[in-house]
Amino acid sequence: MRSRTDYLFFETARRRELVNITARVAQTVAASGVQEGFCLVSAMHITSGVWVNDEEPGLKEDFMELLERLAPTADYRHHRTGEDNGDAHLKRTLTGHQAVLPVTKGRLDLGPWEQVFYAEFDGRRRKRVVVKVIGE
Amino acid sequence: MRSRTDYLFFETARRRELVNITARVAQTVAASGVQEGFCLVSAMHITSGVWVNDEEPGLKEDFMELLERLAPTADYRHHRTGEDNGDAHLKRTLTGHQAVLPVTKGRLDLGPWEQVFYAEFDGRRRKRVVVKVIGE
Amino acid sequence: MRSRTDYLFFETARRRELVNITARVAQTVAASGVQEGFCLVSAMHITSGVWVNDEEPGLKEDFMELLERLAPTADYRHHRTGEDNGDAHLKRTLTGHQAVLPVTKGRLDLGPWEQVFYAEFDGRRRKRVVVKVIGE
Repeated sequence: MRSRTDYLFFETARRRELVNITARVAQTVAASGVQEGFCLVSAMHITSGVWVNDEEPGLKEDFMELLERLAPTADYRHHRTGEDNGDAHLKRTLTGHQAVLPVTKGRLDLGPWEQVFYAEFDGRRRKRVVVKVIGE
Repeated sequence: MRSRTDYLFFETARRRELVNITARVAQTVAASGVQEGFCLVSAMHITSGVWVNDEEPGLKEDFMELLERLAPTADYRHHRTGEDNGDAHLKRTLTGHQAVLPVTKGRLDLGPWEQVFYAEFDGRRRKRVVVKVIGE
Repeated sequence: MRSRTDYLFFETARRRELVNITARVAQTVAASGVQEGFCLVSAMHITSGVWVNDEEPGLKEDFMELLERLAPTADYRHHRTGEDNGDAHLKRTLTGHQAVLPVTKGRLDLGPWEQVFYAEFDGRRRKRVVVKVIGE
């Protein structure tokens, strides 16, 4: 079995941002030498997630608007701790915080429009995503 | 390590549909020869998902109604591209687009009522699901 | 390849509860002997999920309140079967029912505040979570 683990670092300029990381994930897959296996992409901070969808600007706005409607910026119990990012914890949950991507014949086996995004909901802080490939 | 990758094709008659694929996924597991491992089931199109829940008609309607309430059919920014399926992209996100199923002693290791569904939100188009098993 | 499969049993005192299972999952990882691999944590019952977030009491209440707002206790079509837990099936879906945790250098490779919770939405019944590690 082969494996490789990389960490991607982010410190977004805006509080909320969708960063397309497909090419960076593909680099880890290539460097791993894995031909058949799985690639896990997981946000290690609890106010960000991973979204697999279309690279289309209008849709990305629709997605952020959906999350703001379902889990709005508001005063949460979590804020008693001094934090102000309760909505970001909830947005991560609704988005999902990880994806497992198939690796077939040495490459990410994605659908024609599938792109992998790091979804930041409480940015301007240094954060990490783990990209781990296992297989043969 | 052993692995096997199959693709399931769908072209549903209705726009929204839940298709129980548990038996088809089990076939891939059996054909793989894997005794201990993981089976990834992932919708490769960005307007469909994967749902692991109960084969119960009332619940399936409840589930579709929930999604329609949270991410309704409406006019989205995404529609400026000429598409009309913005709601389907969002419904996929709330549903989740994949599941990782444990394979134990050569079989899907599911709970007593767990069934695996392909969740179509923009059907009447040809679509694919990847089923990939890795293990020993 | 190495693997290990454990089942965690739950019978919560309350209908809804978040049970921190990080230490129990870490035990399976240690017992597996896997140095590099993946650990799947998946709720085997269709009215419970798995949540990876912060061990903070206020946030846990915020999370349960979010789910109650989005998928409220109500009369669902599913209840025609005699069940009364339609909301719990839907809450599981919005939460997500599983997580894949990276195992690196023999340990769970989690972010600084990531904790793994069993999320019960229809408790006071005996339920199971599968914890399965594969790797080398």
